[in-house]
Amino acid sequence: MRRFLPQTDVMSNTTQLLGVSNAIVDVLAHVEDEFLQQIGAEPGSMTLIDKDRAKQIYGMMGPATEMSGGSVANTVAGFANLGGSASYIGKVRDDQLGRIFNHDMQALGVDIRLPRADGGAPTARSHVLITEDGQRTMQTYLGACLELGLADITAETIDAPRVMLLEGYVWDIAEGPALARKAVDIAHRNDTAVALSLSDSFCVERHRESFAEFVSDGVDIVVADEDEINALLGTTAFDDTLDALDAYDNLFAMTRSEKGSVIVHGDDRIVQPAAHVEEVVDTTGAGDAWCAGFLFGWVNEKPLHVCAQFGTYCATRVIQQLGARIEPGLLDEFESA
Amino acid sequence: MRRFLPQTDVMSNTTQLLGVSNAIVDVLAHVEDEFLQQIGAEPGSMTLIDKDRAKQIYGMMGPATEMSGGSVANTVAGFANLGGSASYIGKVRDDQLGRIFNHDMQALGVDIRLPRADGGAPTARSHVLITEDGQRTMQTYLGACLELGLADITAETIDAPRVMLLEGYVWDIAEGPALARKAVDIAHRNDTAVALSLSDSFCVERHRESFAEFVSDGVDIVVADEDEINALLGTTAFDDTLDALDAYDNLFAMTRSEKGSVIVHGDDRIVQPAAHVEEVVDTTGAGDAWCAGFLFGWVNEKPLHVCAQFGTYCATRVIQQLGARIEPGLLDEFESA
Repeated sequence: MRRFLPQTDVMSNTTQLLGVSNAIVDVLAHVEDEFLQQIGAEPGSMTLIDKDRAKQIYGMMGPATEMSGGSVANTVAGFANLGGSASYIGKVRDDQLGRIFNHDMQALGVDIRLPRADGGAPTARSHVLITEDGQRTMQTYLGACLELGLADITAETIDAPRVMLLEGYVWDIAEGPALARKAVDIAHRNDTAVALSLSDSFCVERHRESFAEFVSDGVDIVVADEDEINALLGTTAFDDTLDALDAYDNLFAMTRSEKGSVIVHGDDRIVQPAAHVEEVVDTTGAGDAWCAGFLFGWVNEKPLHVCAQFGTYCATRVIQQLGARIEPGLLDEFESA
Repeated sequence: MRRFLPQTDVMSNTTQLLGVSNAIVDVLAHVEDEFLQQIGAEPGSMTLIDKDRAKQIYGMMGPATEMSGGSVANTVAGFANLGGSASYIGKVRDDQLGRIFNHDMQALGVDIRLPRADGGAPTARSHVLITEDGQRTMQTYLGACLELGLADITAETIDAPRVMLLEGYVWDIAEGPALARKAVDIAHRNDTAVALSLSDSFCVERHRESFAEFVSDGVDIVVADEDEINALLGTTAFDDTLDALDAYDNLFAMTRSEKGSVIVHGDDRIVQPAAHVEEVVDTTGAGDAWCAGFLFGWVNEKPLHVCAQFGTYCATRVIQQLGARIEPGLLDEFESA
């Protein structure tokens, strides 16, 4: 029996975490800095591309490795890998990449809530371009994800998880804002807490008003990095950001890369330093892994500083490997550390 | 200008290496030793499985990573990655995995000689199960590979490479022995040297007579590990193996894992020790990488001890990473080492 997991949760059949997000297979390759200039990509950004552009960029890339990805999907996988019970709503097609995506979730025990689509666009892929400094720049073709719709969000598919985690990228889908609102309404009827990952600062720029409205009305926990929260609040200096958060009731879990993380909840300010890392291999999934660790602590009712510690532990691990998802066994290591 | 590559080869348009082999995408996952017992697999072996069994084993596996693979395909990719000119004959279907396989070859400049099949079985995949000691056990569904046929082997698809490398696994295809013979006949008309990789000792057991006939009549270079050569010759002790090789005119390039490698050609015996490795991550592709380095030396007319040195350098690198294919830049490192 794990010490970390209270007896009650082990005994109950309630899903702890439901993720609602874009289901994406990552196509990872190391590139020179010049490659980003060549395709006109901002280092560290995520750009949405269409099918033709995807074909063009893939054609320019070197040999790649394919791994299931997607921001909140990574968090759900990480959460399940830690021993949490998880379910997932995201749209893939019934093609090889879609089967790979579902397999990698189901192999961790994640309950996939939607069937694979028989037709339509192919399963989404994100070309993850990793430069020598370990930073990733993403060129994402959303494909089947764009077909996630209101009809997929029902009392049956959502069920009654302890927490539902939405990602900001869902707002890039035509029916995204509407399906997010429907999901929140269903969640609140079941006393499911609602968490929102802000995805990336460009995504926040695209949907600032809608995000602000959701954060004020419906979202309990905001998980985001400092840039994303600044984009949401219109702040730049860290002190201004903290001051601006005073106006909110939400729990803000803010990551700050090498500056660690800060949890803000009411009058509480919990500061967690980053761990020292000898060599950063690939930052893909650092925030997602942090979120998995944090929420795993949270659903197990750990104090917020322990949640932040565990998030940091997960993120530290994932940046020292290629790929966005945590290898098994991390919870045991954390407990013995 | 690289020192290693003679001016003449840089200037000519002749392809240096053509590979003819099974085109496979690897599905890699770490497993416990018990997993192999559970599925009844011999550690370190390659087992051919059908579609239903593939589905079953994949369903039992944890989250995986997909990378282009296939033994001789790895060698061709490695050879091209080193700066050699290469072409490739292997059968994939026009599905997502087939496009991934071709992309990863073409991104290295490999000239893909066959179109993707419009119908038939899906692109092949090999479930590569990596145990804690870094050893891999493969469960391979050949899919589209089985449809490689005599019609694919023509004077046009083969062209006139400096060396043609066949793999023993081709003999597992219905038309394999016949297409190999046809390929050898075409090669010899163009003064193309013929190399044969023996693939694995179980494969040699399956096709010993046919291999022996090919080695006696048609093959110039045999690349194999000690077990495979023992299986071919019916020997067990290393000294007996060396004695038995006296009867052959072929160049034998024999790898011996941590015992290094031995090149036997006529009266020549060249012994190359293995390099010390701190931690073996994954032995997948060690022999393939060795073969790439060795043949790269050979087509560039380097002395055999340099060919063996370079093969060892490539193999040493590949066992310290996950996956079977060498990262770029290895030639430069070797030259400065």
